[in-house]
Amino acid sequence: MRDTNREWIFAERPEGEPDMDSFELREGDLPEPRHGELLVRVRYLSVDPYMRGRMRDAESYAEPWSVGDPLQGGVVGEVVESESEAYDAGDLVSGNGTWADYTVLDADNVAPVDPSVADLPAYLGVLGMPGRTAYFGLLDVGDPSPGETVVVSGAAGAVGSVVGQIAKFNGCRVVGFAGSDEKVSWLTDDLGFDAAINYKAVDDYRAALDDAAPDGVDVYFDNVGGPITDAVFTKLNLDARVAVCGQIAHYNDEGVPTGPRKLPQLIAPRAKVQGLLVGDYATRFGQASEQLGSWVASGDLEHRETVVDGLENAPDAFLGLFSGDNIGKQVVGVSEP
Amino acid sequence: MRDTNREWIFAERPEGEPDMDSFELREGDLPEPRHGELLVRVRYLSVDPYMRGRMRDAESYAEPWSVGDPLQGGVVGEVVESESEAYDAGDLVSGNGTWADYTVLDADNVAPVDPSVADLPAYLGVLGMPGRTAYFGLLDVGDPSPGETVVVSGAAGAVGSVVGQIAKFNGCRVVGFAGSDEKVSWLTDDLGFDAAINYKAVDDYRAALDDAAPDGVDVYFDNVGGPITDAVFTKLNLDARVAVCGQIAHYNDEGVPTGPRKLPQLIAPRAKVQGLLVGDYATRFGQASEQLGSWVASGDLEHRETVVDGLENAPDAFLGLFSGDNIGKQVVGVSEP
Repeated sequence: MRDTNREWIFAERPEGEPDMDSFELREGDLPEPRHGELLVRVRYLSVDPYMRGRMRDAESYAEPWSVGDPLQGGVVGEVVESESEAYDAGDLVSGNGTWADYTVLDADNVAPVDPSVADLPAYLGVLGMPGRTAYFGLLDVGDPSPGETVVVSGAAGAVGSVVGQIAKFNGCRVVGFAGSDEKVSWLTDDLGFDAAINYKAVDDYRAALDDAAPDGVDVYFDNVGGPITDAVFTKLNLDARVAVCGQIAHYNDEGVPTGPRKLPQLIAPRAKVQGLLVGDYATRFGQASEQLGSWVASGDLEHRETVVDGLENAPDAFLGLFSGDNIGKQVVGVSEP
Repeated sequence: MRDTNREWIFAERPEGEPDMDSFELREGDLPEPRHGELLVRVRYLSVDPYMRGRMRDAESYAEPWSVGDPLQGGVVGEVVESESEAYDAGDLVSGNGTWADYTVLDADNVAPVDPSVADLPAYLGVLGMPGRTAYFGLLDVGDPSPGETVVVSGAAGAVGSVVGQIAKFNGCRVVGFAGSDEKVSWLTDDLGFDAAINYKAVDDYRAALDDAAPDGVDVYFDNVGGPITDAVFTKLNLDARVAVCGQIAHYNDEGVPTGPRKLPQLIAPRAKVQGLLVGDYATRFGQASEQLGSWVASGDLEHRETVVDGLENAPDAFLGLFSGDNIGKQVVGVSEP
């Protein structure tokens, strides 16, 4: 065990696209767990697009970060000191900590991690918050029926890749938008998507959808926004459902972005568009985790993580989300066993 | 009974705002009802904003009008010749006919009209399609609870004025947007709205809403779109519901209008936005008519119709909808008893 701790501090609110000025790596003493807490050596930490929202000084669903505070996020790690009867040193757990070598977690809010089901990074992706977001967003908001067409943007990301596969389990035609040929191949060759569109190689998204979704769109699971979403909205079928999970194309916008108005497009198909936050389903997380774990254990649900090694590279891993560097879940490898 | 019939023909598809070039009044023989049909002398005919959509050569929920065909719409009139056992000459009925002195209605698709409950024009408004739209749109899509704030755009129109009153019956705080001081007075003094905003006299809709809806917006019933809707979307509360009934601000737009993107605004409040067409509730029209008729008969539900007299003035009455000439339901008086 190190006798000092490195921790990333939120140094400055970004305007537009964030850069390294927002991050400062500080070295200090190891934190001390209080009663009911665990000192955890971080093995992997999660960087997620929603964190861009926490960099704004504006009330939203996740509390804004204060300048000078440690950056927070999901972690998987090993308990090195326990002040709780529920866990012992050596246990592997996941929870919400800080971007650090060592972090303190509240024992009531961690979950045990079983490395025999999946490698540790998966507990920040398919078996973590992104997997649960896909599960509830698709099944509860999207509510797909067999034979329907489901379109997913950000399809090769942590959430989208799970959405598409669950839609296939439900007998749907599944079309994904992703940002490279490698991602498109992964979706169609490995994950069973019926079609995938490399939006960086295609000019006319609407024409691409005419081919990929010839029967129109019944469910749209949106992680992205922008021109992809504009095209999908022109193809909504009667009673279509849209789950608005993320809008990464707009997270770095200053001011309110503009684009084609969508409300006039909703009337004819009587489409339903709904914002989605996974926290609303907290009472059913157990159900989701059990189902997702079972699919992963059986090999039916594929998953992939992009690991950037080294705590010092955590900001780069975060910034890379906005250029689509990741395939599947982006995580940072902080320490080895 | 006249021995000739005047009928408005759809003469030309408009671009942008329609004008008289789209309308041609033709004189011809009286139509002849076939088996199961009624020849009806039109007393009042309905002009509605949605008809602008039928002037486009584009597939939508209502079949596009063909150039050269009679204009169609809701009518109330008196049966002058019946080829159905269900109705006799002299009966008053409402149904979907043409903009004409005399029109033929299918007896299976008309409803009897009872002038002791309300004057005939009301059967094209509060007791017709607009009233049912308000009823189902507010109660099924908006789903308001006592104490919630309901905002209505186009609040002094045929649909909006009913929406607001039903919301009051349900114990809500009700705020309307309308386009004149006279309309605002009608809403607040006669219909019981808690507040109303003359959008033609106010620059900052968001600031006006801060005053009128200090607790934010739980339900938004949108007939209008445009900058009013842009402002309301910045005030949506957690679990807000938006019923998109109409978008009259955009009906004359050529191409797809642009404006502030709304999907990013839906995530934090987990708001639900849904397109609405009253035809989807056809199996429950009886329930709605009974309830609306009972409210009207008791005087609890106020209604108002703006009558333009003379079939020759029907296009003017229609065009006036886009400048907000009407208070309550706009109808055309075609004949006297």
